[in-house]
This record gives sequence, structure tokens and C-alpha cells, in this order.
Amino acid sequence: MTTLLYEGKAKKIFSSVESPDCATMYFKDDATAFNNEKKSSFEGKGELNCWISQHMFQLLGHFHVPTHYVRGMDERRLVVKLLEIIPIEVICRNVAAGSFCKRYGISHGKIFKSPIVEYCLKDDDFGDPLINSDAVIVLGLATREDLKKMKDLTRKINVILHAVFRVVGLALVDFKLEFGKDAEGNIYLADEICPDTVRLWDTDTGDSFDKDLYRYDTGDLLAGYKEVKRRLSHSWT
Amino acid sequence: MTTLLYEGKAKKIFSSVESPDCATMYFKDDATAFNNEKKSSFEGKGELNCWISQHMFQLLGHFHVPTHYVRGMDERRLVVKLLEIIPIEVICRNVAAGSFCKRYGISHGKIFKSPIVEYCLKDDDFGDPLINSDAVIVLGLATREDLKKMKDLTRKINVILHAVFRVVGLALVDFKLEFGKDAEGNIYLADEICPDTVRLWDTDTGDSFDKDLYRYDTGDLLAGYKEVKRRLSHSWT
Repeated sequence: MTTLLYEGKAKKIFSSVESPDCATMYFKDDATAFNNEKKSSFEGKGELNCWISQHMFQLLGHFHVPTHYVRGMDERRLVVKLLEIIPIEVICRNVAAGSFCKRYGISHGKIFKSPIVEYCLKDDDFGDPLINSDAVIVLGLATREDLKKMKDLTRKINVILHAVFRVVGLALVDFKLEFGKDAEGNIYLADEICPDTVRLWDTDTGDSFDKDLYRYDTGDLLAGYKEVKRRLSHSWT
Repeated sequence: MTTLLYEGKAKKIFSSVESPDCATMYFKDDATAFNNEKKSSFEGKGELNCWISQHMFQLLGHFHVPTHYVRGMDERRLVVKLLEIIPIEVICRNVAAGSFCKRYGISHGKIFKSPIVEYCLKDDDFGDPLINSDAVIVLGLATREDLKKMKDLTRKINVILHAVFRVVGLALVDFKLEFGKDAEGNIYLADEICPDTVRLWDTDTGDSFDKDLYRYDTGDLLAGYKEVKRRLSHSWT
């Protein structure tokens, strides 16, 4: 018997039959945008995100990034470590896009001279608001040490992803990460890494291959995600 | 001849006739709240804020905090150093109130175990949005070194103000600071320090003596500001 432990907008987490330290992550076909104001479903999206996430977790593992990934299960499910998720979304931005542009009036597409790492409180009721490190620590959401580890890992992941996507002609604009802790207090990258959570632009045309296709109705979401999978499949990574 | 260099919501800055390195800060009677959505005027507010600001700047000077204050001019005007204002509002919070509660769903009045320092982009068109240190630095709004100086000064000022207001029965809930640079790149505390920019609660009753009286229509703004002046006048500081 497996139990549903958590249901997010695009995935479900079930308990694992094989180990109390593991969970099963199931990728749904649902797509949401603008904090659930826009909702839809795309047949096959879950499988694409499962494949891409698995690919990215395996790759980060080669670079000694601790991730919750254990192994693939089927086309929509991964076995992952069961972690206590830290309620902070870590955003890493290389190019201005989305909420950053809207918040500060910065031109879409402005390239930053170094990455900007932001934290958001993971709370849909409040629209996942931006939060700074002082507030994270004082509100007890993460310790200063854990937050530093998360930021350092995010910067390392940024370098790896940047390089990997660059090789397949995709510019890494920004991405969102989540982290979790095991019973011993070790920190792992959790959640998923796929075009739902990563903004990718074609390095030649500037076309989006991520959820912005759906968010701003600028193209076919599934075609974009398939193209990301196709390019990653054909690279040596 | 003096020239109007800047007009804010509650004050005007004029060039100084006596020195090109100085300016005159004039305190208006206007009060605004919620990013200009609410506007009013209170006869005598400018004089009260001028007196309180002058008092606070003199006091901080005793503690070797570099401020733009030079000397008093009349009941509504101070002579200050002419600085290039850094477009960041520095907020220091000891107790949860206002936008912090609304943003994160934190209970009004929650006492923080250590102060939370936040930065906001000084831009009315975007509602002075929260911004983190990475973004401040990458967008070129302040250098990492200047931001560190501003944060260190803010923490020192917090300790001083906390103590000074405690003595007169007022709890320092939170406050907003602005900083500026002179031609040599030295950083000074600028702007004003008064009940427009500082939240103060009576330590016994919890009553507000600051702009929240107007913001939330909970009492007489002028009576609150007068009481702050009265208590400060009667203390030894």
C-alpha cells in the first residue's frame, strides 16, 4: 500500500513500499501558471518532465551534487529519498525574465553580469512572496548554515546547467530549486528540474522551450518540452 | 537663489545658498500612505517631524553615526549635506507589523529574536518592491561594500534607537532608512527619522504613536507625533 504524502500542482509524492526512507514522485500532465490562476493539462507532459528531471538529476550526480534522486521507476515515476522539504524556493537568474522584470521594471532579456539568487516563501496562499535571508533565518524556515549550503549548491548547479544546456543550443535564463533534509540533517536537491521550473531560450532564435509557452500563449508547450528532451538525448551528457 | 532639487511625499530638498556641498531639507505637512493611495495634510506635522529628526540626528551623531545633518535652520528646515541618494530603502524590523505581516501571513506584534533588515527598491512606480542584496549589486544600485556598510550602520542605529525610545516608554517596532554618498564616496545616513518612518508603540498600552494612526485611521496623527516629541524633550538624551 502506498499513501499520497503530498500533491503539488504538477506532481504527487507517494510513500514507497520498498523503504521508509524513500518516496515515489509521480509527474502529472497538469500545467498551472500565475499562482494557479491559469490551469490546463497536456497529455504526455508528465512523461517528458519525468524523463528530463531524471536526466538532470543523474547528470548533477556525476558532478557530486547531492540530490534526492534514487532511480527511475517507470515513464512517469522516480524513486526519491523521503526528505523534509525546506519551505523556500530558490530562484537563480542569469537573464531578466518573468516576475523579476515585472517587479523592478527591468527589460526582458537583460543579461546579468553575475547570477542573482533569490528566495521565495513556498506558500501559495501568499503567492510565494520574495523573502530575504534575514527573514528566512529569523522566522525559523532554515538556519543560516543551511541557507548558505543551499545558495552554494544553487550556484554550482547553475554553472553545470548553464554548460549542459549551452552545448545543446539552449540559454539557461533562470530556474527554481527546492531542497530537503534527511533525518541526519543532510541537505539534498529535491523537487524536479524540467521546463516547468527552468526557463530555456534557443541561443539562436531566442524562442522559449519552457512553461512560458503556456504562460504567455506563445507556442506549443509539448513541442517545446519534446525539443528539450530531443536535444538532451542527442548530446553526450 | 535656491533651487528645488527634489520633492518627496513629505519633504522638499533645496540647494543651499551658503555652500554647494549643502542642501536645505524642508518638512511638509503632507501625509501619504499605501504608496500614495491615501493622501492628507496635517497642520504642524512638518514642524514636529523637523524637530524629531533633528533630535535623532544629533543623538546619532553623539554615537559617531555619520549622518547628513549639519544644523537646524528654522522650525521646518534643516541644513544637510548634499549627497547622492542610494535608491534603496533599508527597513529594520524588531516586531512584525505592516507589509511584513501582509506579505508572509505573520501575526502582527510577533517579536523577532533578532532584527530583520530588508531592502526595497526606491521606486514609487513599482511600489517600492522588496529586493535582495544579489539584485541590488547586480543591478548596480549599490556595491557589495556599500551595502554592507549600510546594513552595519542600520544595525548600530537600531541598537541606539531601541535604547533611546525604550527609555521614554516607546517600543521600536520597525523603521526605514535611506543613505547617500558624498563626492568622496563616504556613506551617510540621509532622509529623516520621525514617526513617518519609524513605528513606535507605547510599551505599556501598545498604542501607536506613528503614521499607522493615519494609515489605519486608528487615532489622531498629530497627537501621536506630539507625544513622541514631548517624551523625547523630557528625556536626558
